[in-house]
Amino acid sequence: MSIAASADKDMTRATALVYASYGRPTEVLRVLKHTLQPPADDSVQVQFLAAPINPADINQIEGVYPLKPPMTSQLYSSSPFSFASSLPPTSSTSALSDTSDHQHPAVAVAGNEGVAKVIKVGAKVGHIFRVGDWVVMGSSGLGTWRSHGNFKASALTKVRSVEKMTDGGDSSSLDVVQLATLTVNPCTAYRMLRDFRTLSPGDYIIQNGANSGVGEAVIQFAKPLNVKTINIIRNRPGHEQVAERLRQLGATHILTDDQLGKPETKELVKSWTQKNEIKLGFNCVGGKPTTEMARLLSKNAHLITYGAMSRQPLILPASLQIFKNIHASGFWLSAWDDQHAPEERQEMIDHVLDAMRQGQFAQINCSKNQWSATTSDTVALEDRLLEAVKTASSSEHGKQVFVME
Amino acid sequence: MSIAASADKDMTRATALVYASYGRPTEVLRVLKHTLQPPADDSVQVQFLAAPINPADINQIEGVYPLKPPMTSQLYSSSPFSFASSLPPTSSTSALSDTSDHQHPAVAVAGNEGVAKVIKVGAKVGHIFRVGDWVVMGSSGLGTWRSHGNFKASALTKVRSVEKMTDGGDSSSLDVVQLATLTVNPCTAYRMLRDFRTLSPGDYIIQNGANSGVGEAVIQFAKPLNVKTINIIRNRPGHEQVAERLRQLGATHILTDDQLGKPETKELVKSWTQKNEIKLGFNCVGGKPTTEMARLLSKNAHLITYGAMSRQPLILPASLQIFKNIHASGFWLSAWDDQHAPEERQEMIDHVLDAMRQGQFAQINCSKNQWSATTSDTVALEDRLLEAVKTASSSEHGKQVFVME
Repeated sequence: MSIAASADKDMTRATALVYASYGRPTEVLRVLKHTLQPPADDSVQVQFLAAPINPADINQIEGVYPLKPPMTSQLYSSSPFSFASSLPPTSSTSALSDTSDHQHPAVAVAGNEGVAKVIKVGAKVGHIFRVGDWVVMGSSGLGTWRSHGNFKASALTKVRSVEKMTDGGDSSSLDVVQLATLTVNPCTAYRMLRDFRTLSPGDYIIQNGANSGVGEAVIQFAKPLNVKTINIIRNRPGHEQVAERLRQLGATHILTDDQLGKPETKELVKSWTQKNEIKLGFNCVGGKPTTEMARLLSKNAHLITYGAMSRQPLILPASLQIFKNIHASGFWLSAWDDQHAPEERQEMIDHVLDAMRQGQFAQINCSKNQWSATTSDTVALEDRLLEAVKTASSSEHGKQVFVME
Repeated sequence: MSIAASADKDMTRATALVYASYGRPTEVLRVLKHTLQPPADDSVQVQFLAAPINPADINQIEGVYPLKPPMTSQLYSSSPFSFASSLPPTSSTSALSDTSDHQHPAVAVAGNEGVAKVIKVGAKVGHIFRVGDWVVMGSSGLGTWRSHGNFKASALTKVRSVEKMTDGGDSSSLDVVQLATLTVNPCTAYRMLRDFRTLSPGDYIIQNGANSGVGEAVIQFAKPLNVKTINIIRNRPGHEQVAERLRQLGATHILTDDQLGKPETKELVKSWTQKNEIKLGFNCVGGKPTTEMARLLSKNAHLITYGAMSRQPLILPASLQIFKNIHASGFWLSAWDDQHAPEERQEMIDHVLDAMRQGQFAQINCSKNQWSATTSDTVALEDRLLEAVKTASSSEHGKQVFVME
């Protein structure tokens, strides 16, 4: 008993939202209560502060996202554990990892983005992280919907140094939600504005889904560059408030999607841009409205697709490509991360953090969902968390964020 | 009378296919018989040897092509002239140039591509051209469907020097049809293979409309580079002969369009390419079959659209752009010509000519239509020429070429 008691002191009680098979998130996600071993020499243990529910997280759980996190039972096979409710039966053909057995089916921790605080540091990485540092994930697929986790130091990026905090040098007004949603949307906006065209003051960009997380970040990055934005939102009840919020963020012009394709809209846009060019288009919608948006681009412009909320493909008349020389590419931050050195990623994160510290970014429009790390009632916790996931799957509400306490 | 007789000696009797308003080519085209003044100091007079009927020529006459040649009556207002049949009535709103009057409506000479022989040289351009030189057009919109014409020397590109011919140094086997069809299809293929991806031996490209003029040129340029081609043709009667011809040109593999989108085709293509990449796709068709072709491209590939024979747009699933990083661009040689120096164009033409001289290019599949430059029966000439234009508008036949005699 004394050995167990002593071991217990080093163990951390944790909860995580996991799934053992792909499917509808509310059907396959379960709260797993388990205990974490101390971190290995090359790792740190973190306590999550906040993690958003992004559309890609949902697609990943459904099994329709190209990045599939490895399923494993290592997370909990060496510790006491309990599932809040029993896992759904998986088909006999589902691939289980080698480490799983009947009692410990292989699972993946959901979620890709989040901010966490370092609470334990492995023997060999004390020169990189200190207890109290804040970190974000260095890549996708690590699993962020959990109260605590052990991660290799090399998999994390520091966003707030405990040293500077104690020195008063990092008295940032950034809250956990801004930091938790830093690595996907603002970084996507940052790269799309930089990597395809050189923009000068007075140049225009046009984007649909302008009130998406990326869309709002685009507006806020463009503003201090004096790059003008034409922002397309859906014409539905409340669109006036959406437009007003975007204007406050710095949007230059707003169009509703039903205005696209009309001759008077073409004239209107011309009257806005005058002799300036619309050099970039950002598309997260697809379908015919995006074709109409593409027709508003200037000659030689680049149209970047980073999403397809309408689940419709991009439709480009040949004349737009041949005679107007419109280029069409995609952007996926995960691929960018894979193809660039960690130093380049750190540089990007630092630029985004600087912009945030300088107050260029408004609070994001979100609903916070409390994740009680210490609760013993995991059934109630599971109900609450799955409710947030369900809400996030409907586009009628703002972003849902787990806030761990 | 003696003055007129003396002037007549300097005049050249010419015929041209012209139009005064946009419409169906067989309805708006007329043979215009006129006489040409001697060339101005900065110009040369040429006698056309051959000129093809390209799809873009048809679209231009229909008024649906972005390049619209200037309409003018300068061509014939100072000379005796006659139209083989009367011009169709034009609406009162049709724009006529300043130089036109009731008797001399402004017209455009049809045709954009062709090869011609220099027969008179202006006083100031004797250092550039000699009588007997062969030339092609330096840009689009100059009007090539005519027996003779005066052109500024700067508007022409030399393809065969009379000096070298006399020295026996240009004993080329190139015939007039190859030279007449040099500046559009082979140059388009040449640029598309060079300007988007660096290709190494073993790399693959995939293209639809593989038996088009550009398609055949792509095959023949790719072969000596040891770049492999996957060629898509339509499954219709006679496709076996088409496939056989393409194989003789050097096509690596052939697919018919009905094979696209089938899982076994994907496997087949994988078995062909092994670990090599399909880095480029060339599209002159559009619509769903092109989407299926795009799915066969390797990651990071570039899809170039240079035509839309199906009159359908390009349809690209967002996943192909976001997760496979497929880029889509257009290519239009006229824009390339506008954006590059004449020296660069000359260099390209010389490369293409070299390839032709080295026997890399087979004769193109075409029907020759005789254009009797000296006939006095312009009505019969008009009938014959319009029959060729009509045949060219149907895709069932090979390319139609005017051969002037």
